Amino acid sequence: MARDMADQPGVLRGLLTDGAGAIAEVAAEVARSRPRFVLFAARGTSDHAALYAKYLAEIRLGLPVGLASPSTLSVYGSRPDLSDVLVVGVSQSGGSPDLVNYLQVAGECGALTVAVTNTPGSPLNQVAALEVDVAAGTELAVAATKTYTAELLALLLLFEGVRAGDGRITFDDLPGLAALPDLAEELLADHAASALSSRYRFANRLVVTGRGYAYPTAREAALKLMETSYVAAQAFSGADLLHGPLAMADPGLPVLAIVGNGPGGRAMAEVIDRVAERGADLLVVGPEGTGGGAVHRIVTPSVDEAVAPILDILPLQALARHLAVARGDDPDAPRGLRKVTETL
Amino acid sequence: MARDMADQPGVLRGLLTDGAGAIAEVAAEVARSRPRFVLFAARGTSDHAALYAKYLAEIRLGLPVGLASPSTLSVYGSRPDLSDVLVVGVSQSGGSPDLVNYLQVAGECGALTVAVTNTPGSPLNQVAALEVDVAAGTELAVAATKTYTAELLALLLLFEGVRAGDGRITFDDLPGLAALPDLAEELLADHAASALSSRYRFANRLVVTGRGYAYPTAREAALKLMETSYVAAQAFSGADLLHGPLAMADPGLPVLAIVGNGPGGRAMAEVIDRVAERGADLLVVGPEGTGGGAVHRIVTPSVDEAVAPILDILPLQALARHLAVARGDDPDAPRGLRKVTETL
Repeated sequence: MARDMADQPGVLRGLLTDGAGAIAEVAAEVARSRPRFVLFAARGTSDHAALYAKYLAEIRLGLPVGLASPSTLSVYGSRPDLSDVLVVGVSQSGGSPDLVNYLQVAGECGALTVAVTNTPGSPLNQVAALEVDVAAGTELAVAATKTYTAELLALLLLFEGVRAGDGRITFDDLPGLAALPDLAEELLADHAASALSSRYRFANRLVVTGRGYAYPTAREAALKLMETSYVAAQAFSGADLLHGPLAMADPGLPVLAIVGNGPGGRAMAEVIDRVAERGADLLVVGPEGTGGGAVHRIVTPSVDEAVAPILDILPLQALARHLAVARGDDPDAPRGLRKVTETL
Repeated sequence: MARDMADQPGVLRGLLTDGAGAIAEVAAEVARSRPRFVLFAARGTSDHAALYAKYLAEIRLGLPVGLASPSTLSVYGSRPDLSDVLVVGVSQSGGSPDLVNYLQVAGECGALTVAVTNTPGSPLNQVAALEVDVAAGTELAVAATKTYTAELLALLLLFEGVRAGDGRITFDDLPGLAALPDLAEELLADHAASALSSRYRFANRLVVTGRGYAYPTAREAALKLMETSYVAAQAFSGADLLHGPLAMADPGLPVLAIVGNGPGGRAMAEVIDRVAERGADLLVVGPEGTGGGAVHRIVTPSVDEAVAPILDILPLQALARHLAVARGDDPDAPRGLRKVTETL
C-alpha cells in the first residue's frame, strides 16, 4: 500500500503528459454526441471517483447527473430509454460482472458508453464504445490508492475536455492542476498524518464530512479507514450530517472535516460550529485559514476546489495506513477482501 | 415517537382512500409532460424515500434517475439545462432553504417541479409547479417515522400513476399494496423487534444492508439507530459491502440484512454467505424462507419487493426506539437535533 501510494505523483505526471492526448480524443467524441444527461456506474472506491465526476459534470458542464444503481438493469432487468445519455463506467479492474452488464445493456438502450479503467482490454473496455486508460500501473494492495487519484484526474481531464468541446483543456482555468504532481509529492513527504494517527489508536468509530467536491474525499477516506483499520468510519455530506447523524456526536466521537477554500468549504462553517457545540473531537483537513480555529489540522495545498480532491485524499490514505499499522493490522491484507470484487 | 409510529396504518389507509385522487391528478400531469430524466432533491429520512422512488422510476418506468446534490445549484451556482427533466423535492417540512432554492432554480432551468411534503403551503410547495401532500398529520417526534412511510406510499402512488398514464393505478399489479394498512397494523403489533433489542444493548456499531428496493430500508434503519440510540450504524448496498467494508466484519459486528422475496433478495445470497464466513452476528429481516438459515430473524409480510419497504421499516423503527429506551436515552429528544434542519 505504501508503494502504491508513493507512485501517485508519477502516475499523475504521466496522465498530464502522455495520457492527456488519448483522453482529449475521447472527450472530443463525447462532446460531439452532445449528451443531455450523464449516468455513472461504479462500486467501492471507483464509486467515489464517480461521485467526484458527478460534481464536475453538474457544476462545470451544467449537465444533470445520476449515479446508477446497477441492480436495476442487472437484478431487476429494467430496459430504460437512454438516448442522449452518456454512461460512464468506472472500475480499476474493469472486471465486475454487474458493471459490465450495466454498460452492455446501457449501450443497447441507446447510451454512449465510456469505460474508465486501469486495465486496457478488460471486459468493461470491451463492451464500452469509448475507453479511458487511467494508466496507474499494477496496483499491489487490495486497498485502492493510486488507481483512485488516477481515476479522479482522468475524469477531470475527460470532463474538462468535453467542456472545451475539442478535448483541449485550459490549465489556467483550474489553479493547481498543472502543479498537481509536485504538490502531491510535497504532501506525501509531510508527516502530519502519521503523527496524528496515534490520536485515533483506540477509536472504534469516526465520522468524515465535507460538502460539494470534498464529499467524495470524505467517502473515500471513510472507506480506507474501514478496509485497513476496521474502524466504523461513516461519511456524510455536511448538510446530511445535520439531518440526524449529528445526534451521535459527543466528545468520544472523532470528526474529520474536509474544508476547501471555495464555496463548498465556506458552506461547512455551520457544520463545524454544530459539531463543536456537541463537543466532538475535530480534525480539519484543508488549506491554511479554512475550518475556523480548529486545533487539530492537516494542511493541504491551496488549489481550486475542483482539483483539491486529488490532493486531499493523500494524507487520509496515509492516516488509514498508519492507523492500521499502529493497531497491529496489516494494511496489505485486509480481512475477507479480494482485489477484484465480483457482484452480479 | 411511539405515537407517531402507531399512526402509520391509519396514515397509509388515508392515503390509499382520500389521498389517492389528488395524487392521481398530479401523476397524470407529470405523465403528460413526458419526462426523459428524473432528479430527486431531499435530505435525511426524505432522501431515503427519494432513493426508494429512484428504484421505482428506474425499474417500473424505465427512466434514468439521479439524486441531486443540492449544493451544485445552491453553493456552486450551477445553471443546468433541465428541459425534459422531472425534479421531485421530498421534505417533511418543505422548509429547508437548500431544497427550496434547488426546486426554484430547477424550475427556472426548465424542469417540471413537484414538491412532496407533509406541509401544504410550505416554501417548497410554493416554488414547485405541482404538489403532493403525504398527509401524515403533525409528527411529534424529531425522528421521522410516519412521514417516512407516508412519503414512500405517496411516491409509489405518484410513480405508478405516471406509469398508468392517467394516474389511475392497478392494485393487482403489486401484491400487498391494497392490504398495506392491515399488514402494517399486524406488524406493529408483533413484539419481535422489542424482544431482539436487548441483543444490541451493548453494541456501539452495526451494519445494515440490502439490495435494490431493500437498500433504502437499510439506509433509513441506520439513520433511526444513529439518531435515537447513537449507535454508529452504517448502511451499505449488498454489492458495495463486498467492496471494502466487509473487512470490518467479525463476531463483534452485528449485521442486519433486509432480504426480500424477489430479485433483490435473491441477489443477497452471496452477501449473506460472505458475512457469515467472517463470523459476523446476522439478523435477517424479511418474509419467511428468505435469508437462508439465519438464526435471528424478524419476519415481515410476503409482498412485492416494491411494496415491502413501506412495511420492512416498521420493526426497524421499533428496534431503534426500544434500543434507545433500553440504553437510557430518550428517543423523543435526540441530542443536538432540531425538527426542521435548515442547511443552505
